[in-house]
Amino acid sequence: MWPDLRLCDLMKIGQPIIQAPMAGAATPALAAAVSNAGGLGSLGSAEMNVDQLRAATAMLREATDRPFNLNFFIQDAPRTEPAVLEHTRQRLAPWYSAAGLGAPPETLPALGPSFDDARLALLLEIRPAVVSFHFGLPAPDAVLALKAAGIVVVSTATNVAEARALERAGVDAVIAQGYEAGGHRGSHQPTAPGDGVGTMALIPQVADAVGVPVIAAGGIGDGRGIAAAFALGASGVQMGTAFLSCPEAGTDAPRRARLRCATDSDTMLTDAFSGRAARAMRSRYAQVMEAHREPLPAFLQMYALSDPLVAAGPEDEVSFHLYGQAASLTREVPAADLMQALTREAFATFARVSKSVP
Amino acid sequence: MWPDLRLCDLMKIGQPIIQAPMAGAATPALAAAVSNAGGLGSLGSAEMNVDQLRAATAMLREATDRPFNLNFFIQDAPRTEPAVLEHTRQRLAPWYSAAGLGAPPETLPALGPSFDDARLALLLEIRPAVVSFHFGLPAPDAVLALKAAGIVVVSTATNVAEARALERAGVDAVIAQGYEAGGHRGSHQPTAPGDGVGTMALIPQVADAVGVPVIAAGGIGDGRGIAAAFALGASGVQMGTAFLSCPEAGTDAPRRARLRCATDSDTMLTDAFSGRAARAMRSRYAQVMEAHREPLPAFLQMYALSDPLVAAGPEDEVSFHLYGQAASLTREVPAADLMQALTREAFATFARVSKSVP
Repeated sequence: MWPDLRLCDLMKIGQPIIQAPMAGAATPALAAAVSNAGGLGSLGSAEMNVDQLRAATAMLREATDRPFNLNFFIQDAPRTEPAVLEHTRQRLAPWYSAAGLGAPPETLPALGPSFDDARLALLLEIRPAVVSFHFGLPAPDAVLALKAAGIVVVSTATNVAEARALERAGVDAVIAQGYEAGGHRGSHQPTAPGDGVGTMALIPQVADAVGVPVIAAGGIGDGRGIAAAFALGASGVQMGTAFLSCPEAGTDAPRRARLRCATDSDTMLTDAFSGRAARAMRSRYAQVMEAHREPLPAFLQMYALSDPLVAAGPEDEVSFHLYGQAASLTREVPAADLMQALTREAFATFARVSKSVP
Repeated sequence: MWPDLRLCDLMKIGQPIIQAPMAGAATPALAAAVSNAGGLGSLGSAEMNVDQLRAATAMLREATDRPFNLNFFIQDAPRTEPAVLEHTRQRLAPWYSAAGLGAPPETLPALGPSFDDARLALLLEIRPAVVSFHFGLPAPDAVLALKAAGIVVVSTATNVAEARALERAGVDAVIAQGYEAGGHRGSHQPTAPGDGVGTMALIPQVADAVGVPVIAAGGIGDGRGIAAAFALGASGVQMGTAFLSCPEAGTDAPRRARLRCATDSDTMLTDAFSGRAARAMRSRYAQVMEAHREPLPAFLQMYALSDPLVAAGPEDEVSFHLYGQAASLTREVPAADLMQALTREAFATFARVSKSVP
């Protein structure tokens, strides 16, 4: 029996382990395997259109009848000042030139808001057990509509103030994302890459600040981390990097190879790919861009400038390989086996520390 | 009984809690109170000369007959390139001017190495139970001499590679310092302020990498954090910020007042005060300097340029107030009461998670 059952009860899952909704790496096969193993599988749905989302959900439902989670970004239609675009084009020109790419693009794609009425309507039709948001929450009536449909609504906080704001807005649980986490920081406003609260400090302060269950994320690589999260006051964990090497994940072969030699220190936070801070493998491009911070094109529009550089590589020079600081603990086993191992290790850790109790 | 007794046995202490050797804030009275309460009190001795060190140790010995720790920096005699000094003077000129301070200093103080033969000789005479180092280790013969004198030698690692290097060099235990920690990062080489591994990710990876006991530091503010550190594989903890508001600490009144309203998010890493990355209260000066990284004068010499700005304040503009990301958990109680509370909370946490074990 887990020492805190609030998340399991809320989500109707057996193991309080959420597989993070890593867009691209989290496939319907991975999410289904995690849900079938008693955890909560997730799909990063932010960059799927409504048809893709419908198809992915159908695949998931085919593979599991357990609860699963769909994840969305909260981001207004991005707008980049022409002067910022021009300044960034000048900064990137040497990189483009060195990669033989000609001049950086002169225009950015027009993009709508990340979460819109069509997606809300589809969610109310699909009714996943859980919907999670990144970068905040949708408008209050959307949150109400999701909850009224029986959907558990959660979102990410990277500090106490954001956790309090989420609770006030009616979330059923808060994902407290520490600095260690791979991928995009879920901060409600864009932040400097150096910002971030480590999981060890974040969880108890968030647990003290909100009444809803807290889901710890960031730097949790095995059952020791899960047990530590419960000690700190969490009711469950969200783990992403730990699932990247599962055969069910969408991770490509070069990235799988790279993860085999990952260390605790080979990632950094950078906003020079997407326009918002994300933890990714260290690369010279990210380091150079980070050393001198200048305004960048808006989130998602920035990809139009960075994608050609990433495609040109090589990976130590320019790459956007998202993983967290506990990547060295990642195992190449099927998701069901991983879920079993994580649970076993967490309980072994509870037993190890409990020998102290008279 | 603590779930892992290796650190207690090594240091002959009853509670595996080390009070961090915060120079300035850690007084002999604080260190003695912690040692008398069964933990390990520490004095930041890096910036004391031999006479001051002798006097401080005498005060400590007067107040406790328990083990205590003296801490030293490992830093060669700093040398700053004239061009770097000149460039930094130009960067700081507007700050000096705004503070009515005239032009920044034209010369930097000549400083020797932080740990020298005189300090080694004094340590071999004083024989504290424990000596800890920051930024690496002294020469191999110094480490051997300390160990031969029966002194427990520990040092700080901020990543797995540094922990392995320390173990190879013969330390008796490794302090694994996470990104959350207040004060100077103990990195063996200067690093960018954004670098750093969170405690949640760091501890299990270091515990897997070395055979000596691991002391978790960074973001641990109460007994939940202590219990979490043990779950992650640590044999003890080092806590600094938690002791800053004890009456025995050397914290001045304005800083005590500020700590009362500390949040998880109001610190940042900056090298713009000392020349090496340290976690301190956010200030506009630190943010501006951090946004554009340029080479700075060497560690400790940089203080000659920043001290006048700090003295001029105001604190939100320029200040070097060192504390960590769990500062909101800090309590204004005597050190003995704090030690009791931390121990009680840790055991309550062990008991809470142990109810899961059949």
